[in-house]
Amino acid sequence: MRSVRILTTGGTLDKVHDWRAENITFAGAGKSQVPEVLEHGRCYHPEVEQLFQIDSLDMTETYRNLLLERVKAAAEEGIVITHGTSTMAETARFLDGKAEGKTIVLTGAMRPHSLFISDAAFNLGGAVIAAQTLPAGVYGVMNGLVFAASELKKNEKLGRFDV
Amino acid sequence: MRSVRILTTGGTLDKVHDWRAENITFAGAGKSQVPEVLEHGRCYHPEVEQLFQIDSLDMTETYRNLLLERVKAAAEEGIVITHGTSTMAETARFLDGKAEGKTIVLTGAMRPHSLFISDAAFNLGGAVIAAQTLPAGVYGVMNGLVFAASELKKNEKLGRFDV
Amino acid sequence: MRSVRILTTGGTLDKVHDWRAENITFAGAGKSQVPEVLEHGRCYHPEVEQLFQIDSLDMTETYRNLLLERVKAAAEEGIVITHGTSTMAETARFLDGKAEGKTIVLTGAMRPHSLFISDAAFNLGGAVIAAQTLPAGVYGVMNGLVFAASELKKNEKLGRFDV
Amino acid sequence: MRSVRILTTGGTLDKVHDWRAENITFAGAGKSQVPEVLEHGRCYHPEVEQLFQIDSLDMTETYRNLLLERVKAAAEEGIVITHGTSTMAETARFLDGKAEGKTIVLTGAMRPHSLFISDAAFNLGGAVIAAQTLPAGVYGVMNGLVFAASELKKNEKLGRFDV
Repeated sequence: MRSVRILTTGGTLDKVHDWRAENITFAGAGKSQVPEVLEHGRCYHPEVEQLFQIDSLDMTETYRNLLLERVKAAAEEGIVITHGTSTMAETARFLDGKAEGKTIVLTGAMRPHSLFISDAAFNLGGAVIAAQTLPAGVYGVMNGLVFAASELKKNEKLGRFDV
Repeated sequence: MRSVRILTTGGTLDKVHDWRAENITFAGAGKSQVPEVLEHGRCYHPEVEQLFQIDSLDMTETYRNLLLERVKAAAEEGIVITHGTSTMAETARFLDGKAEGKTIVLTGAMRPHSLFISDAAFNLGGAVIAAQTLPAGVYGVMNGLVFAASELKKNEKLGRFDV
Repeated sequence: MRSVRILTTGGTLDKVHDWRAENITFAGAGKSQVPEVLEHGRCYHPEVEQLFQIDSLDMTETYRNLLLERVKAAAEEGIVITHGTSTMAETARFLDGKAEGKTIVLTGAMRPHSLFISDAAFNLGGAVIAAQTLPAGVYGVMNGLVFAASELKKNEKLGRFDV
Repeated sequence: MRSVRILTTGGTLDKVHDWRAENITFAGAGKSQVPEVLEHGRCYHPEVEQLFQIDSLDMTETYRNLLLERVKAAAEEGIVITHGTSTMAETARFLDGKAEGKTIVLTGAMRPHSLFISDAAFNLGGAVIAAQTLPAGVYGVMNGLVFAASELKKNEKLGRFDV
């Protein structure tokens, strides 16, 4: 099987409760929840590279270019990108066709991993497998489904990704 | 993508705390945790069929024959089987070659889903994707890895499945 | 021992994650988390009366008058009030001296009960005991400490109540 | 208010999931969950002294004598003892009348703290307050109720302590 690198960009998956702000926010640079999701999943093989801690509404072309740069720089053929759900589809389409030979899988969560009841582990578990089993290309993996980049679309009303 | 049926057989994934026994046990027939794992994962598409609530050390040829019967009876091409880890490899090899045209993926957990910190969601999320993306055959999906039935082997010392 | 009534007014204790708002908010009228805190604590004896679901920054004289009315109307001598921490001290001093013969204990949380790791159960457990063991008067119970209404003061920097 | 010392003796409150044993067991000497319960409760003032990690069915006269010795040696007037529920009543009656001038409060849990949904925090929060507010004597605090040592009795059928 292919080896896998996970690039983290933030999104809801990574948020934590902040009692000062009385809100959920990012814990700070280099504080992704992804290593803990993997540890709970007893999944030790992927390399984790923490890139950003941003809301995907703040994802700009500059961030996307940097992300693409890191995808290309990766030695691994399987790439998982954790990303906010709001603009996951846009980033998938941005990356589509730009990194030949790599299987790139975007995933994320509707509820932060740190709140215990969360879709983060289910989605990340699926994405890590998809990065090893799908042919080269760009995909989204959410709710136990695989979407081609061109077909990825958040259902804002139901809080999920539908076929 | 293929449609997916999940057959539950119990195992650690399904255990709950029992204050009377001061132990972890099964909640009873038809009380698999799998529907809750899927709900937390916002994964609504697989059909769930609850077969047994047994420790995989109690998995006998009779149970395995019944399991095979239900695999064959399924309309879906993608089959996920939740199973205790101790004899998951034996059941995988028992099923291997007996259900042509189906992608059968066994998975489970080292820590019950009901204890919140668990590998259940990560593993089930991976298995649901594998059942849609792998060619026909029998596999185990654990810790973010895919194993052919013939190569599935629990590392009892480390509590995981290694390549 | 005295019988106990719990009046809920909202505050951080009662907030839940809202995936639409990508924030923590109130689940709606009559949706206090207090019944679940009691259930987890196996505490079946207090009467629970759900009054408001408001942030304590929105607590006005009108709300406080209604709260006082419900305190006076209670048959129980022991009263626990769940309240946001920001203005808990003001409400305690408002009630002080206005409900003779009753032991009134305000409590709350810095982290919502619904996030699993929370100070809600610890604080409510303490408040329920204090309402049965302290002489008539108005108190705050937070972090395992008892404060007279006149001395209750949130330490905003540390997120707790200090002597 | 009185200062408080917590003596830990194990019991269900302190148990953790052990994937090797596929059971819940003690994590080992000096590994009480009580410091984490206090941390989640933002309760920083009590001194914690970890004595044993035993099932209360294994509580013998020798253990009880050692416990009494540590109660007497404590500088604090308020003493909380975490204890398994099965023989909590016996230990309470053993201590009764033997440590003048001290308020001794036994507490515990029906479900381990480490399983997230637990009565540990609710009970310990109540016990810490009781140790500061009750007159000298020996008590049990469970389910939001206070019991004199002579009246403490576990309802094995319902898994709680009733009046």
